[in-house]
Amino acid sequence: MLLNWDEITDVVVIGSGFAGLSAAIEANNADASVIILEKMNAPGGNSIISDGGIAAAGTEMQKKLGIDDSPDLMYRDMLKAGLSLNYPELVRQVTEKSNEVLQWSIDYLGVEYMDRIDIFGGHSVPRCYTPVGVSGSAIIKRQLKKLDEMRIKVRTRAYFKSFIRDSKGEITGVLVCDDYSHKHAESGIEKRIGIKKGIVLATGGFGSDVNFRSTQDPRLTLNIDTTNKPFATAEALKEALKINAMPVQLSHIQLGPWGTPDEKGYGVGARFSDYIVFPYGIVVEPDSGRRIVNELADRKTISDAILNIGHPCVGIADAKAVETTGWDIRPCLEKDIVKQFDRLQELASCYGISSDDLNITIEKYNGYVENKMDEEFGKQILPEASPISTPPYCGIRTWPKVHHTMGGVQINTRAQVIDINQKPIPRLYAAGEVTGGIHGACRLGSCAVTECLVFGRIAGLNATTETTSKVSK
Amino acid sequence: MLLNWDEITDVVVIGSGFAGLSAAIEANNADASVIILEKMNAPGGNSIISDGGIAAAGTEMQKKLGIDDSPDLMYRDMLKAGLSLNYPELVRQVTEKSNEVLQWSIDYLGVEYMDRIDIFGGHSVPRCYTPVGVSGSAIIKRQLKKLDEMRIKVRTRAYFKSFIRDSKGEITGVLVCDDYSHKHAESGIEKRIGIKKGIVLATGGFGSDVNFRSTQDPRLTLNIDTTNKPFATAEALKEALKINAMPVQLSHIQLGPWGTPDEKGYGVGARFSDYIVFPYGIVVEPDSGRRIVNELADRKTISDAILNIGHPCVGIADAKAVETTGWDIRPCLEKDIVKQFDRLQELASCYGISSDDLNITIEKYNGYVENKMDEEFGKQILPEASPISTPPYCGIRTWPKVHHTMGGVQINTRAQVIDINQKPIPRLYAAGEVTGGIHGACRLGSCAVTECLVFGRIAGLNATTETTSKVSK
Repeated sequence: MLLNWDEITDVVVIGSGFAGLSAAIEANNADASVIILEKMNAPGGNSIISDGGIAAAGTEMQKKLGIDDSPDLMYRDMLKAGLSLNYPELVRQVTEKSNEVLQWSIDYLGVEYMDRIDIFGGHSVPRCYTPVGVSGSAIIKRQLKKLDEMRIKVRTRAYFKSFIRDSKGEITGVLVCDDYSHKHAESGIEKRIGIKKGIVLATGGFGSDVNFRSTQDPRLTLNIDTTNKPFATAEALKEALKINAMPVQLSHIQLGPWGTPDEKGYGVGARFSDYIVFPYGIVVEPDSGRRIVNELADRKTISDAILNIGHPCVGIADAKAVETTGWDIRPCLEKDIVKQFDRLQELASCYGISSDDLNITIEKYNGYVENKMDEEFGKQILPEASPISTPPYCGIRTWPKVHHTMGGVQINTRAQVIDINQKPIPRLYAAGEVTGGIHGACRLGSCAVTECLVFGRIAGLNATTETTSKVSK
Repeated sequence: MLLNWDEITDVVVIGSGFAGLSAAIEANNADASVIILEKMNAPGGNSIISDGGIAAAGTEMQKKLGIDDSPDLMYRDMLKAGLSLNYPELVRQVTEKSNEVLQWSIDYLGVEYMDRIDIFGGHSVPRCYTPVGVSGSAIIKRQLKKLDEMRIKVRTRAYFKSFIRDSKGEITGVLVCDDYSHKHAESGIEKRIGIKKGIVLATGGFGSDVNFRSTQDPRLTLNIDTTNKPFATAEALKEALKINAMPVQLSHIQLGPWGTPDEKGYGVGARFSDYIVFPYGIVVEPDSGRRIVNELADRKTISDAILNIGHPCVGIADAKAVETTGWDIRPCLEKDIVKQFDRLQELASCYGISSDDLNITIEKYNGYVENKMDEEFGKQILPEASPISTPPYCGIRTWPKVHHTMGGVQINTRAQVIDINQKPIPRLYAAGEVTGGIHGACRLGSCAVTECLVFGRIAGLNATTETTSKVSK
């Protein structure tokens, strides 16, 4: 049967976040014609709402500041966080190319970074560079500008429906819905795009896909919100599984313990919990008035502790804690996410905690702070920590949110998608959150942007190297 | 196209372990014709080498002994061990039917159990019943006897190759290799079996499938042995994935920290490590001569600690420890798995540990035992523990082994296999280790047998209830 294509191109990139746009740029630079498909009304995917921080090791900036770092140290940090479930050879790629892609984003894309290097939990040294504006959109904009110069426009409202395969099962094209509206599941006009070289799957994670994510972690029902945009769903990943892509570590889903049920998405409360409550305050279960966890434990430990309670807990910090951190909490107060009280009794009453129980808990905790030793949960009492005793007292309801899906399709170092029999699927490449194995059990902050740029570029370049296809008009 | 079948039956059961045989019995009892396929030369699968211990809650035997237990308590134990990744409704089934299947195995199958109830790690109360002979073969034999009475023979050397589907994608039969030899991958004669009612997939776990398991946990290369038989591989699971069964929690693979590299399989050394070294001795890293972990931590913690070292460690216990436990270690000594030494110095030299380092470690540890407080790793010092000071001293090399694969295909409470779009796959049922979600992140000892009997029976019965098929001769 001769297939009739509506259109033919060398490379199709599905998704327009960090990974997809990187792939498109490299495919174009390798002289391939490129079509970028984006199901939403605007490009950028979930990348655009990230803070854009990128981790890189052994950089010029680090050397200037006397920070001793190396790809090998970053590799070891990622494996430690990932509980060694990471694919070692993929982590090597990410870490060894981390400096190169940071520099590429500066020199080639023109991204401007703030004049600082931050350290986040799990990293041994400061190695996170944040774009001016503290937003992933800074990188996306520059990528779109570069693509504009190449005369490549992201096709928005173009929904990837399925792979088209020939009688031997080999991919020859994609079925797309043009003029798709995410508000109407079955909308749009079907179109068949034939592919002469390769496809790059860069469709992101499935943090917002309640059905899919709860098959892997049954706790993650509708009761759990996500920091992701609502379109972070699994349909493209499922299409890859349908053609026998190997699923890798799908059940490793990262929750942010700093979520609050009182606002949707990432919101403004997360920083209050993460930077003020966890290091300098406490998290209390309202029924008992007791602490439930080492508030400085890793994300998974804190999230699991709160989920095990079964209902939101209350994060508490005093004015001294706010002052110590220097954070401006007005946005949280204005939105009523964080509430202030002159007396602990009022805070207790507002959150349904017995005032006596809360007093006992805080007295105990203050003792730990004074003795620099948390006898209950072994929390590290920071040098600048002080007892919770300075009004006004701040409260926030805490309930974890799905933040990142570590699992996805298996890829090799060439970004080829691998099937369940461990063979590359001809012409299919993938990069970014849709892939699995790079972060293992737990992703470190700011490593996702690095991963997307490194493997996006690899996927885009390699997708152009497939042997000429059998696509016929 | 009219399909030509070599044979037609109501129900095909693939696999002849606890789950498969239970399914076949129930299918027959529901008046269905049944064919059981087994790829190996003999029936019993991996079940036959288990110790056959079955967990059940709220039993007559418990009541007699005054043990206060309930399905709900067992449910909570399983969820706690599984880190709440368990599918709650499936765990409810297992725990609520646990007493029923134990009784079924006694009354209906005629299995005889020892006159004792044991408690294993993670269970709140004693609830494990062990067949006379301490072997799963006791149950398998009784199941085979029952099937013999039903005139159903397990077809050995019958290798399940793939599902046969009609033009709509619906399963109509299975492709099987008859006269298959596991020594020759492509051996046997192809045969098409048409199915009038349903299929039960009961093909076990993939603990011996190095390729497949290492995609989910890249540490589990050929360097890691398994307690499973060599045929515990993923090919049937992969066939299910090919027809879009939803993969669940494949990356949760349980390692036994009590493995030793000095023998294949489960062997005789496991009990020495588990019952003598871990509670009353220490595990030492040979290069430093230091302990590396709380030896009474859970399986995952100890296994991960040893794997992180990257080479085998040494388990050490003295004559007093052996005496305290009452275990007969002669089988370990005869096979040279455990070595005895009159002096610690000789032990150190044999395992390449610096004698001085080892002395320091043991002196420290003995201090912890005397003070009933392990200041390094927080190990619980048992009341009957004593310092390591009574010769002869015993040593064993420790290196974890793959023991159980918690992940597999998704099923619902009816044992129907669920596809990636969360719809049951018509006519396909599954039970036992090939399914995922019951044990979550970690399986408790003796719960697997319960699971196999409960869901094997459910799958077998329900496979007979499918509407009449479109199979034509």
